[in-house]
Amino acid sequence: MTSGSAQNETVGDLGEFPLISLITRNLALPPAVSVGPGDDCAVYLINGSALTTTDMLIEGVHFRRSWSSPAEIGHKCVAVNLADVEAMGGTPVAMVISLGLPSDLPVTWVKEFMTGVREEAELGGVALVGGDMTSARDITISVTVIGETGGRGPVLRSGARPDDVVAVRGRLGWAAAGLAALLRGFRSPRAAVDSQRAPQVPYGAGRQAAEAGASAMIDVSDGLLADLGHIAEASEVSIDLDSARFTVADPVHAVASALNADPLGFVLGGGEDHAMAATFAPGKVPDGWDVVGLVGHADEETGPVVLVDGAQWEGDKGWTHFRS
Amino acid sequence: MTSGSAQNETVGDLGEFPLISLITRNLALPPAVSVGPGDDCAVYLINGSALTTTDMLIEGVHFRRSWSSPAEIGHKCVAVNLADVEAMGGTPVAMVISLGLPSDLPVTWVKEFMTGVREEAELGGVALVGGDMTSARDITISVTVIGETGGRGPVLRSGARPDDVVAVRGRLGWAAAGLAALLRGFRSPRAAVDSQRAPQVPYGAGRQAAEAGASAMIDVSDGLLADLGHIAEASEVSIDLDSARFTVADPVHAVASALNADPLGFVLGGGEDHAMAATFAPGKVPDGWDVVGLVGHADEETGPVVLVDGAQWEGDKGWTHFRS
Repeated sequence: MTSGSAQNETVGDLGEFPLISLITRNLALPPAVSVGPGDDCAVYLINGSALTTTDMLIEGVHFRRSWSSPAEIGHKCVAVNLADVEAMGGTPVAMVISLGLPSDLPVTWVKEFMTGVREEAELGGVALVGGDMTSARDITISVTVIGETGGRGPVLRSGARPDDVVAVRGRLGWAAAGLAALLRGFRSPRAAVDSQRAPQVPYGAGRQAAEAGASAMIDVSDGLLADLGHIAEASEVSIDLDSARFTVADPVHAVASALNADPLGFVLGGGEDHAMAATFAPGKVPDGWDVVGLVGHADEETGPVVLVDGAQWEGDKGWTHFRS
Repeated sequence: MTSGSAQNETVGDLGEFPLISLITRNLALPPAVSVGPGDDCAVYLINGSALTTTDMLIEGVHFRRSWSSPAEIGHKCVAVNLADVEAMGGTPVAMVISLGLPSDLPVTWVKEFMTGVREEAELGGVALVGGDMTSARDITISVTVIGETGGRGPVLRSGARPDDVVAVRGRLGWAAAGLAALLRGFRSPRAAVDSQRAPQVPYGAGRQAAEAGASAMIDVSDGLLADLGHIAEASEVSIDLDSARFTVADPVHAVASALNADPLGFVLGGGEDHAMAATFAPGKVPDGWDVVGLVGHADEETGPVVLVDGAQWEGDKGWTHFRS
């Protein structure tokens, strides 16, 4: 009976402080972290400049309990932040996580979620050092990651120069194809659906690009065209992508065929895969990166734009909140 | 008509990116911050070890729109985090803020909220360097502050030693008295009610205590007894408070009289004022701090406890989420 009641135990049954103990149990802290959870602040060392990024994920907006396992949501909320540190060419150091939890949420959900959080943190090399917990109507997750630049300067969005090449590393269109499949009630192709549930961030690609001298970089969260648009604006350049340069992955092809959609729409417009997109001086592109376009001068009339094969892309270019 | 429609404009009308522009407009960044909002991460310098704290505030749980103005909520969400950095004896450097906003929320609410955020950030000396924004059913605010220890080590909860004195600086019981008044439908005494809506953190008191050699410190968020309990546990000591040493402020007295309650219950059990509580070697207590008790050896039978006049306190000792 004990295990049965434990199985059905809710966040409200357990209470705030036991839940925090459960989450912070056996937490491994690297040498740079001198104080982890349990004091007013975490304390740790930063090498070079500090980098900070934050993301908020809310049930019903960013994920659905019926679509994603707790572990997948845990992976995702960490991955999206680590990708931002990668996109500066930095190394993640410390992470804090705040959870708003409904009282009737099973404790097992929180446990499995934290398993995903810890696994992704280990993959990306960041230490969970603290957080906050409160009650909420919808599961609400806020993650902040603090990183360091080490011996290099950060790679900004504003450094792209005419004649640089544009290159990408990581998955493009997988998460969007997975979302399209899920929205039609499909659970396959599995690889695309899994990508929607938890992105496969190409960890290390950002530091690799920084070491190779990338002039600008961003992670693809809103969609390649939208995110390269941020680089074009910040750098005051235009970008022209060569559609023939993109390799469309099999799962993206499969979804596009099933839905009678243009697979390139997923690749160019689909977000949430957190691939890295960067610009490099010609000949400086590191291994594993695919050159997909060229940086040019911003046209005086149109300003900084991102074109595909020399023309405006007419398909989907990602989405924003509040207008979806 | 233009001003009329602008007056009624909602977050959903305006859209995500214009809203972010509105929030980050004319942001003053100190020299330590090289990259503010608008890239994948903020970039800034840290002197000494980094300190990090985070808090999540949710409408209906931590505040009500009918009780608090948007500016007061802005003040509060920044203040509670800055108080944590103070409680380590640190100096705040950078802040990120994530907002979950209902689509039908008026843009004017967000503007006034951000006015409060910026005013409190200026009071406490922290730079807003980035954030995230999403839609949500309830207004959801997550703030993370990163600070620095400078030339000193952090003041932990675990450093209290027998024969140290316990001292406090800042308001005690004001917010709890204000909450009690609000819960009965009163809007006065104004000073207590205002304290509930936005705490008056004694900025600088934490660094002052650290410079004076405080052995342990915490900010009073859950209530003095509960928070000194954290010091007692972490330091493995007992603490005995002298009830005659506390000055009960007029607004707290007024509420206690009106509700026929013990004013000392608000002072000892009331949270959310974010006063500083610290322990010092005798004779090391800095100006402006009130000595209210003594640190002793933890009793072998009872373990680390906080007593009042040598006995367990029978009144309210604060509250926890999920069980309230």
